[in-house]
Amino acid sequence: MKLFQVGERKIIQHIRRRFAQEGQRLFTGIGDDTAILKASALGPAGTKDLLLTTDVLVEGVDFDFRYCSFHQVGFKAMAANLSDIAAMGGVPRFYLVTLGLSGDISLDQLDQLYEGMADLAHNYKVRLIGGDTSATRNGLFVGITILGEVEKGRALVRSGARVGDHIFVTGNLGDAAAGLELVKTRSQGLTARSSLLLRKSLLPLTQRQFYPVPRIEEGRLFLTNRIASAMIDLSDGLASDLRHICNESRVGAVVEAAALPLSDTLMKYARNIRKDPLMFALTGGEDFELLFTVPEGRISHLMRLTRHKRLRLSRIGKILPRAAGIKLKDDRGRVVPFPARGYEHFKNGQ
Amino acid sequence: MKLFQVGERKIIQHIRRRFAQEGQRLFTGIGDDTAILKASALGPAGTKDLLLTTDVLVEGVDFDFRYCSFHQVGFKAMAANLSDIAAMGGVPRFYLVTLGLSGDISLDQLDQLYEGMADLAHNYKVRLIGGDTSATRNGLFVGITILGEVEKGRALVRSGARVGDHIFVTGNLGDAAAGLELVKTRSQGLTARSSLLLRKSLLPLTQRQFYPVPRIEEGRLFLTNRIASAMIDLSDGLASDLRHICNESRVGAVVEAAALPLSDTLMKYARNIRKDPLMFALTGGEDFELLFTVPEGRISHLMRLTRHKRLRLSRIGKILPRAAGIKLKDDRGRVVPFPARGYEHFKNGQ
Repeated sequence: MKLFQVGERKIIQHIRRRFAQEGQRLFTGIGDDTAILKASALGPAGTKDLLLTTDVLVEGVDFDFRYCSFHQVGFKAMAANLSDIAAMGGVPRFYLVTLGLSGDISLDQLDQLYEGMADLAHNYKVRLIGGDTSATRNGLFVGITILGEVEKGRALVRSGARVGDHIFVTGNLGDAAAGLELVKTRSQGLTARSSLLLRKSLLPLTQRQFYPVPRIEEGRLFLTNRIASAMIDLSDGLASDLRHICNESRVGAVVEAAALPLSDTLMKYARNIRKDPLMFALTGGEDFELLFTVPEGRISHLMRLTRHKRLRLSRIGKILPRAAGIKLKDDRGRVVPFPARGYEHFKNGQ
Repeated sequence: MKLFQVGERKIIQHIRRRFAQEGQRLFTGIGDDTAILKASALGPAGTKDLLLTTDVLVEGVDFDFRYCSFHQVGFKAMAANLSDIAAMGGVPRFYLVTLGLSGDISLDQLDQLYEGMADLAHNYKVRLIGGDTSATRNGLFVGITILGEVEKGRALVRSGARVGDHIFVTGNLGDAAAGLELVKTRSQGLTARSSLLLRKSLLPLTQRQFYPVPRIEEGRLFLTNRIASAMIDLSDGLASDLRHICNESRVGAVVEAAALPLSDTLMKYARNIRKDPLMFALTGGEDFELLFTVPEGRISHLMRLTRHKRLRLSRIGKILPRAAGIKLKDDRGRVVPFPARGYEHFKNGQ
């Protein structure tokens, strides 16, 4: 059944029935003019600040159905938004969905889109409380707004980095960008056999592109243990996102190329296509790892936490005075300017 | 200067500088991973419920630049969202903007879009705290999410109507729909002279289409004076929106056609084009007036309030038992079924 045969009211009823868990104690959800969040929904009165973030993915710009499924688009839209809450050290609580849909989408595809969102949302107990759906002339867009919470006055903003702080990242860098390149090129230029082999051995890269994991737990740990002085999620790429921290904190930085965490799969892929894996790590976006700064005095505590919680962290550099700029120390110890920015809308050929 | 020459970062800086009033006491806005609303931003702790609503307008579906300006689109997107808060009896406080923009839009046009939003937002002291901007392959969309507040447990939901309650509306009905028809047809089929005359004398209709006024003050009055038992804003048209109240409240209703408030301008326009003005009032959307139900015992208080505050209200019908269905009593006293629904996405030829 296509949406143009169904009508908006039926679509909303369908979504409400399937995906909106009612929670009368906390909220009145879909089906009135607005969602109502009860005063008690956000923990003991006056102890929490609210976090609000919104992120939209547009077909043909942020995703392409030649390379991904409706489920993946829903999952990734949710991941990108959750990652912003993670980057503040916050707890995601509720979400609203804004959809632009063309009438030729089927109800089944719409379900897959919501399932992608719900699979991840469910994992973090984030609940759907409302939204809006419009038709589009063509193409789809998915906007999610998340409401989260954080201990009063404790959100991990970008502006808290101080000279002498160490720079850390969670996980590996560059996999998501390599994964996207891989799916885009896998039918081009590779023989059938090498393509199949490559695809199998490089599957982790495409997983990282289409099913990114927001670092909610890690963000919470760094906040509750007072580890991080500043934090951001890596959505546009290290080059771009480190600049955000440096600009907002009015500091400089040096990053050691040799310390950047690269997965074996990325190394293998880069060797195969004769590219420098570092470029994926530096300018590739959508890893949704956390980039954060840690004062010297908190390092030993972080090390204990890392062992205890089996975190995968890398110390990649140090915060310098602003006048030092943002520098990269390459494998041979040479200091070079940081590479150009990562992904930016209306540039990069948009 | 076109957006594709500017780049996302510069666009965000520009918007932040021009439209995001900082309010350190209440929030940290644009420029971090999420907006932070301080615990104290929403009044004395634990006394307010939160209202969250989102509404998106899509070019070619919800608006068309052949008939309206960027300023009007921004204004109307804000009006539609504020109207949802008005319909709960709430106070709008903060907003986020989600934009999809094609690269050929100019920075000046983007300013006009934000000015349209800001003109109305400013009026109600609603502050911009964040958002997201993406490119689109073509066409524009504008999504707004508003966070509002309302006295704990007091939001005016759709489900509160009871048998015997009177049905009221604010303002006039049908003007906005007539205004849209007018601009769409003004260059077709009318001679230059009659077109000019019509356009001038019918200007109020197009004003109602492009610069609708959300009924925030009225909504607040009905809540604080405990007037309304249920309330909704007229966004899809009376036929559709009264059904929402009846369905959610599990009641029926009868509306008196003769009691529907029609403007002189609408009457004149309808006469001119030989249409029944009632059809605009019943099925035309986007009036953004309030439709609400009032228990018998609160009528005299409402009458005093109406005189005192010079409200423009009409009593248009009565709530009946569910089994009675939803009926219209026409000018000659005949009871007929209520006309078909108002506007619905994915239908009406979408």
